[in-house]
Amino acid sequence: MSQEKSNKWFFDHLSPFEAHMHGIESLVFSKKTAFQTLEILDLKTYGRCLVLDGKMQSSEVDECIYHEALVHPAMLSHPKPKNVFIVGGGEGATLREVLRHKSVQHVLMVDIDQEVVEACKTHLPKWHQGAFEDPRLRLCCLDARQYLEETDEVFDVIIIDISEPIEEGPAYLLYTTEFYQIVMERLSKDGLIALQAGTTTLSYLKNFTAVCRTLKEVFPIVSPYQASIPSFGLPWGFALASKTYDPEGWDTKEIDLRIKERVQGELLTYDGKTHMGQFLLSKQLRSELVKEVRIIEDNHPLYVR
Amino acid sequence: MSQEKSNKWFFDHLSPFEAHMHGIESLVFSKKTAFQTLEILDLKTYGRCLVLDGKMQSSEVDECIYHEALVHPAMLSHPKPKNVFIVGGGEGATLREVLRHKSVQHVLMVDIDQEVVEACKTHLPKWHQGAFEDPRLRLCCLDARQYLEETDEVFDVIIIDISEPIEEGPAYLLYTTEFYQIVMERLSKDGLIALQAGTTTLSYLKNFTAVCRTLKEVFPIVSPYQASIPSFGLPWGFALASKTYDPEGWDTKEIDLRIKERVQGELLTYDGKTHMGQFLLSKQLRSELVKEVRIIEDNHPLYVR
Amino acid sequence: MSQEKSNKWFFDHLSPFEAHMHGIESLVFSKKTAFQTLEILDLKTYGRCLVLDGKMQSSEVDECIYHEALVHPAMLSHPKPKNVFIVGGGEGATLREVLRHKSVQHVLMVDIDQEVVEACKTHLPKWHQGAFEDPRLRLCCLDARQYLEETDEVFDVIIIDISEPIEEGPAYLLYTTEFYQIVMERLSKDGLIALQAGTTTLSYLKNFTAVCRTLKEVFPIVSPYQASIPSFGLPWGFALASKTYDPEGWDTKEIDLRIKERVQGELLTYDGKTHMGQFLLSKQLRSELVKEVRIIEDNHPLYVR
Amino acid sequence: MSQEKSNKWFFDHLSPFEAHMHGIESLVFSKKTAFQTLEILDLKTYGRCLVLDGKMQSSEVDECIYHEALVHPAMLSHPKPKNVFIVGGGEGATLREVLRHKSVQHVLMVDIDQEVVEACKTHLPKWHQGAFEDPRLRLCCLDARQYLEETDEVFDVIIIDISEPIEEGPAYLLYTTEFYQIVMERLSKDGLIALQAGTTTLSYLKNFTAVCRTLKEVFPIVSPYQASIPSFGLPWGFALASKTYDPEGWDTKEIDLRIKERVQGELLTYDGKTHMGQFLLSKQLRSELVKEVRIIEDNHPLYVR
Repeated sequence: MSQEKSNKWFFDHLSPFEAHMHGIESLVFSKKTAFQTLEILDLKTYGRCLVLDGKMQSSEVDECIYHEALVHPAMLSHPKPKNVFIVGGGEGATLREVLRHKSVQHVLMVDIDQEVVEACKTHLPKWHQGAFEDPRLRLCCLDARQYLEETDEVFDVIIIDISEPIEEGPAYLLYTTEFYQIVMERLSKDGLIALQAGTTTLSYLKNFTAVCRTLKEVFPIVSPYQASIPSFGLPWGFALASKTYDPEGWDTKEIDLRIKERVQGELLTYDGKTHMGQFLLSKQLRSELVKEVRIIEDNHPLYVR
Repeated sequence: MSQEKSNKWFFDHLSPFEAHMHGIESLVFSKKTAFQTLEILDLKTYGRCLVLDGKMQSSEVDECIYHEALVHPAMLSHPKPKNVFIVGGGEGATLREVLRHKSVQHVLMVDIDQEVVEACKTHLPKWHQGAFEDPRLRLCCLDARQYLEETDEVFDVIIIDISEPIEEGPAYLLYTTEFYQIVMERLSKDGLIALQAGTTTLSYLKNFTAVCRTLKEVFPIVSPYQASIPSFGLPWGFALASKTYDPEGWDTKEIDLRIKERVQGELLTYDGKTHMGQFLLSKQLRSELVKEVRIIEDNHPLYVR
Repeated sequence: MSQEKSNKWFFDHLSPFEAHMHGIESLVFSKKTAFQTLEILDLKTYGRCLVLDGKMQSSEVDECIYHEALVHPAMLSHPKPKNVFIVGGGEGATLREVLRHKSVQHVLMVDIDQEVVEACKTHLPKWHQGAFEDPRLRLCCLDARQYLEETDEVFDVIIIDISEPIEEGPAYLLYTTEFYQIVMERLSKDGLIALQAGTTTLSYLKNFTAVCRTLKEVFPIVSPYQASIPSFGLPWGFALASKTYDPEGWDTKEIDLRIKERVQGELLTYDGKTHMGQFLLSKQLRSELVKEVRIIEDNHPLYVR
Repeated sequence: MSQEKSNKWFFDHLSPFEAHMHGIESLVFSKKTAFQTLEILDLKTYGRCLVLDGKMQSSEVDECIYHEALVHPAMLSHPKPKNVFIVGGGEGATLREVLRHKSVQHVLMVDIDQEVVEACKTHLPKWHQGAFEDPRLRLCCLDARQYLEETDEVFDVIIIDISEPIEEGPAYLLYTTEFYQIVMERLSKDGLIALQAGTTTLSYLKNFTAVCRTLKEVFPIVSPYQASIPSFGLPWGFALASKTYDPEGWDTKEIDLRIKERVQGELLTYDGKTHMGQFLLSKQLRSELVKEVRIIEDNHPLYVR
C-alpha cells in the first residue's frame, strides 16, 4: 500500500469534540446483534480490530498490552489460582492469557452476546489462538450478573472484561456497588478481581476514579493501575480488588520469578518492570483518585457517553 | 457550548493513515514564519494549543505533564544546577519549570524562531507565566547549534525542547551524533542533558530508539523515559543523558525530598512516584531499545515524516 | 498558501451520512445569538462564508449565483415593482440585488435576528456593498410573520430568504400554508413572491417538493426552478409564486431586454439563457413535483433535519 | 441502520482543501489493477459506487443522470446511428444506454483495464443490466487510442467515457488535440462524439473549458452542456462535438419525438426539457468558455490534480 493518505476512515469518537481517525484497509464483518453493534475492521496502522457500539475494543497490534495488563497482575497476586471466572471477554484473548497459568483447572467464561463470541472465534484467530478449544473452559452466553447471583460456585480470580457503561449498552449494571458485592461473594476467601475501568486521561475521568471509589465500598484492597494502548489514543485504566493480597507490595524480581514458574510461553509486554511502571500513577491521577466521592449504584448508574 | 458534535476540526496527523481529530473552538493566531508554520488554536477539549508545521506541540490542559517531565528529572539529578541552557522551548514553559529551581543563577534560552517566541509571549501566558521577565534569563533567537559551537560557556544542564525532525523543518540537525558531541563539550564535568525524543508507540518508533542509541555514542549514561500526554494521542518519550549521574538509582523518597528542598511552588504532576513510573518502560519497549542499531548522523539524518 | 492538504476543516453535514468538508483559512466571528448559532469563516476554496446552525448559508465565491437566482426572476416578472418586502436576508445581498432595480421605491427588510444582521454588516461587506445605507431601505429586526399579519401595507414583490426549517430554528413557521396565505394577502393585485426551497437532490427531497405543493394551495401560478451552488455541494431549489405572471412564458431575449432596461450594473451570472436553464428541471424532478401530496401546515410542520 | 452518524467515511477529495464525505455501509471490492486503484463501496446515501484512483466515478442512485446525459444527446442528434464506438465505459452503463437505440447494429467498446471491466460485470449488475451479453457488442481491453489509430473502421457516434486526466492515470492522452484528430478521422461523414469533461464549477474549471477549446481545434461544431450529479458534489460538464449536427437548434418536442420513436424502454431523467436545461449554461460559465485559450496537446497535457 502506498504512502498516500487513506481515503476511507474510521472515526473512533472519544467525545463529541475529539476522535481518533484510522485509515481503513477493509471491512471484515459487521452485525447488529441483540445487544450491540459489532464491527470487525482491518485498519492500516493497527491491523484487525474489534469495534462495539462504535468504540475500538482491541486491535491486533496492541491487544497484548491490554490483555496482559488485565490478566496477569491478578493471576500472579494469587498464590495458586485454580478456578477463574471471566465476565465478557468475547475476543478470547483474556481467556488465552488466563489459560497460560499452569495452576488453572477450570475457567468459566460468561459473555452475554453469543454473536460477538461467534464472530470473534471466526475472525479473530490471533486473539484466541485456539483457547476456545481448551478442555478447561466452560463457555456460557448469558447475563453474567444473573449467573453469579444464582450460582454457588466460588472462584479464585474473577476478571471483568466488558465494554464501557453506556445507556443503551449491555454493560452498565456491571459497574455498580451491587454488582461488586455479588462478585465479592463468589470469590474464594483469598480471591481477587481485575477489571478495565476506562481511560485515565484527566479530561475524560468520568469512569475510572468512580469505579475505583465504588470498589472500595466492597473490597478492603483496591489497586488502580494503567497501561498505554496506542490504538485507544488514550492511556487506559484498570483496577485490581482483593480481600487479601496487595500487588503493590512486591518487587520486580518476585514478579519475574512468578512469571517464570507459573506462566507458559513468553509474555510480550508484561514483566516485573512493566508491572511496577503500571502501578505507579502520576501525582495528578493519584490526587483525583483521593478526591473522588462518587459511588456507582444500580439506581445511580454511570454512563460514559 | 452544547454537547452537539463540533463542526470545525483540527486534524493532527500521526501518519497518512492515522490522525487525532480535535473540535476547534477558535483560531487565535497563525503565521508562516521564516522557519515553520505556526498556529495557535483554542480546542474544545484541550484549550489553547500551539501547533508547528501541523503538529500539536503542547496544550493548555496537559502541557504541565510534558514540561515537568522534560525539566525536573535532569535538574534534580544534578546536585546544584546553576547554569542552564535551553535549546528551543519557545512556549516559555520549559523556562518556567527551570526557573523554579532555587539553585539556578543563569538561564540561556536559544530558539531559532523569534516569531514563535513572540507569538507565545503574547498568546500563551498560561505557559510562560511571566518567566520571560525573570532577570536570570538571557534569550537569543539564533541557531542553537551554531551558538554552542562558537561559545566557550559551560552549563550544568542543557534541555533540548525542539519539534520533531522533519525534512523541511528547523530541527533535524539537532538530533545527530555530531550535535550531541557539541552539547557534551559544553557541559560542566557533572552536567546532564534532557530532551524529548518522539513517541514511544511501537507503530511509530522511528525516532525514539534511534535517538537513545545515538546518545549512547556520546554519553556514558543514557536513561530513556516516557509520559502519557493525552493531547498528543500517543505516549511520549524523553531521554536523560549524563556524564556522571544516573536517575534510575534513586528511590521515590529521595526525589520527593529534593523537590521539597529545591523547587519553588507546587508541581502538578511530577513527584517521586511519577518519576519512578516514567522510567519503568514496558518489556516491549525495552526490547526495542536494546535491538536498535541506527545512529543518526549529519550525513544520515532521520525524518519522522 | 501551499498545495498541502488543509489541517483544519469545516464539516457541513447534509445528513448524518454525508458532509461537505471545507479547509478552513480562519475563523472570523462566532456567536450564539438569541435565535441561532452564527459563524463567519474564511474557507480556502470559497472565501468568506456565513454559517447558521452549522449550515453554509452563502459564500463569497458563489453567493452571486444564489442571490441573483432568488431575486431577479420575480423582480423581472413584475412590470414595475415599486414596493418590495424581504423576509430574512441578513447578509444584505438579497437587498443589494433588489436595489439594482430602478423601479424600486421602498424596500422593507424584516430579519428576526439583529445579531446576524449586525455581524453581516461588519464582516460581509462584499455581500451588502453598502446596501444597508440606501435611503429606500427600512430595516426591522422582528418576526416577519407577525409583522405581515399586523400591517396593512401592500407589496409588489415579497422575497423570502430564510434558512432551512429545523425544529430548534427560527424559520419553520415561515414554510406553512398559513404563512403563505398571510403573504398572499399582503401582495398587490399583480404581486409575486420568490423563495429558496432547499436542495433539489432526490436523496434529500424532503423540503423542495413539499414547499412547491404547499404554495399551490395558495397561489394560482407556482414555478419551481434551481441553480447549482458549488459551496452547498448540492443543486439548490427556488420557487416563484404569483397571482398573475408566469415566468415560464418568456423567451431569453425578453429577459435580456428587461435586464438591460431595468437593472443597474452588470449581473454576474443571471441572464436570459441562465434563466431558461434554471426553469428547465429534469424529468425526474418534474415527476417528483407532480407526485408530491404533502402540504406543510402550522400543525404539521416540516423539518429538514 | 439507525439515524446515528456514520463512523466510517469515504473522503472524495475535490482538492487539497475540499472533499465530499460519504458514510460507508460496506466495502465490496478493491484491487490495484495494472492501470489504477479500483474500489467498489456501498455508501449509506448513494448505494453502491465505483471509485477509481480515489475519485467517485458513478453511484447506483444517480448514475442514470450521468449516463443518460453522456449518451442520448449525441445518439439522438444523429439521424440513424448504426455503428458506435465507446472509449472506456467499464461500468457497462454507457453501453446499456447506447444499446437502447433501435438503430444500433454494432457497438465496439474499448476499455484499457480488463480488471475494471470484470469487477463491474460482477459487482455492478444495476449498471450494465446484462448489456455485456448483447450480441451487437464487441468488447476489447486495449488502449483505445492505439486501436483507433490502427483501424480503418468508421463510426457514427463515438462516446468517450473515461476518468479524469491525472499524471499517473491512464486517461490523460485521451484529452488532447492529437487524440481528437484521430477520433475525427474515424467518424462517418455526419458522425458525432460525446464526452465527459470534468466539473463546471468555476473554482475547479481547469479541465472543462480547456477540453471544449481543444475540441474546437478539430470539430466545426462543439456544444458544451452540464448535469448536476449529486454524488459528485459538483455540477458536471459534457461536450458534444460534431461535423454536421448541432443539438442546440432543436426544440423539446423534437427531442421527445425522437426518444419515443428510437429508444427502447423508459429513460429516467433525460427528455426534451432536461436536454434544453442541460445545454443552457449560466452567463458566468459561457463567459469562461469564451475566454479560454488553452489547447491541450500531447506535449502539453492537462492534469486535474
